[in-house]
Amino acid sequence: MGHTAGHWSPNELRQAIRSGRWRGPTAGLCPGYTQVNLVILPQSLAFDFLLFCQRNPKPCPVLEVIEPGRTEPRRMAPGADVRTDCPAYRVFQGDRITPADDVRGLWRPDLVTFLLGCSFTFESALLEAGVPVRHLEMGCNVPMFVTSLPCEPAGAFRGNLVVTMRPIPSELVPKAVTVTARFPGVHGAPVHVGHPERLGIRDLGAPDFGDPVEIRPGEVPVFWACGVTPQVALRNARPELAITHAPGRMLVTDVQDRSLAVL
Amino acid sequence: MGHTAGHWSPNELRQAIRSGRWRGPTAGLCPGYTQVNLVILPQSLAFDFLLFCQRNPKPCPVLEVIEPGRTEPRRMAPGADVRTDCPAYRVFQGDRITPADDVRGLWRPDLVTFLLGCSFTFESALLEAGVPVRHLEMGCNVPMFVTSLPCEPAGAFRGNLVVTMRPIPSELVPKAVTVTARFPGVHGAPVHVGHPERLGIRDLGAPDFGDPVEIRPGEVPVFWACGVTPQVALRNARPELAITHAPGRMLVTDVQDRSLAVL
Repeated sequence: MGHTAGHWSPNELRQAIRSGRWRGPTAGLCPGYTQVNLVILPQSLAFDFLLFCQRNPKPCPVLEVIEPGRTEPRRMAPGADVRTDCPAYRVFQGDRITPADDVRGLWRPDLVTFLLGCSFTFESALLEAGVPVRHLEMGCNVPMFVTSLPCEPAGAFRGNLVVTMRPIPSELVPKAVTVTARFPGVHGAPVHVGHPERLGIRDLGAPDFGDPVEIRPGEVPVFWACGVTPQVALRNARPELAITHAPGRMLVTDVQDRSLAVL
Repeated sequence: MGHTAGHWSPNELRQAIRSGRWRGPTAGLCPGYTQVNLVILPQSLAFDFLLFCQRNPKPCPVLEVIEPGRTEPRRMAPGADVRTDCPAYRVFQGDRITPADDVRGLWRPDLVTFLLGCSFTFESALLEAGVPVRHLEMGCNVPMFVTSLPCEPAGAFRGNLVVTMRPIPSELVPKAVTVTARFPGVHGAPVHVGHPERLGIRDLGAPDFGDPVEIRPGEVPVFWACGVTPQVALRNARPELAITHAPGRMLVTDVQDRSLAVL
């Protein structure tokens, strides 16, 4: 293909991942295309998980659900395979969480796949509106923090809200709020602006997932609900088997970000 | 209580229904309070039904799901009982649909209850914006039509979209669209304006559910997705048992309509 990763189409990127040529974070790749969080579960847990998402729509916006045993997201990424097309996975088995490059060997006919919205989607819109996105400038993963705010539980699923943080110049905070509010299907407006300690976050320099980013003078930390939230709830549910993408290593779909805007 | 039905609080109305003093339509009662569609199903069908709702959010906006066996909508109507507090029910058993005044005798520990948004919610907002609502003026039930547009199926659930129709003076159609678009949790913006035949509707004077209403010169028929849609999908699924409210005879909750507005 001869392209650099920055110029791949979603299908080219998925092929590169499937063949082992790309294992890095997906932030900034395939600009304008929707990246999604992946959660794969046995059917016996699927109702409770879908209910957890319904009760916590800001961190868990459901974009597609794939029927038991099927591996192709027909609506969002025809031809893709959820077992191979994320750069990295996490496998949950009881208390154990192990990393994996692909999960074909774990596949079973009772596994149900959920695609959840990801805040990367509204980053194109932020950039177009003149709002800088620090982790894209720095070429690293977005910083993610587990907060002290509990989600509403459903069945075995319970846990605290996870947020992403982007430092925003104070005069652009209103713009950052209104632009992202147009994307309720991918976390929407921020959940918090300005005081990390109110979310139980002690050190913005030490994220629970992803990379720390620089906060410059005159910038305010702004927090959005994050699709890693269900991974915390999954860990607490101690499922006999569940599979997710690794934080920041998303499934990239053929859906255009702008198609998810309302108003 | 000495009140007329028009002045009951939601709790007073539910008590009147529970004790058999009110069996009529709920349109226009408890103005400003959210009325909801009710669907009660065995747990074995609950995942497929929740998925049907996720795939068809305009006709099936899920506002609350009550855990198996429980009968109180803790979030939306504390103290209410889903078995007794609708003025009338429909019981689905295979191919048979029978009416019922209450469904205590059918209750089982595996029944899951869904509360879905109802377009009555945005009618207060329409009235406040100066948009007339004909069926309220006439004191009858809103007309509902089964269209020729298929919903996206999920498991055993499939069927065509059901819509409500309100005749709107042509100069107020833009207002009717923008006002209702603010309420995505209760069907949101109309799905169609102006040509019933494009929806497969032959005779606006002969609704499939509810009552016919007058369309005056200069008025345009405007169609919104309707929470009776899942009843059509239910009928097609031939469940061994399912329970819904009777069309137009809703569960009235303690939630204020205005709390469901976005923007």
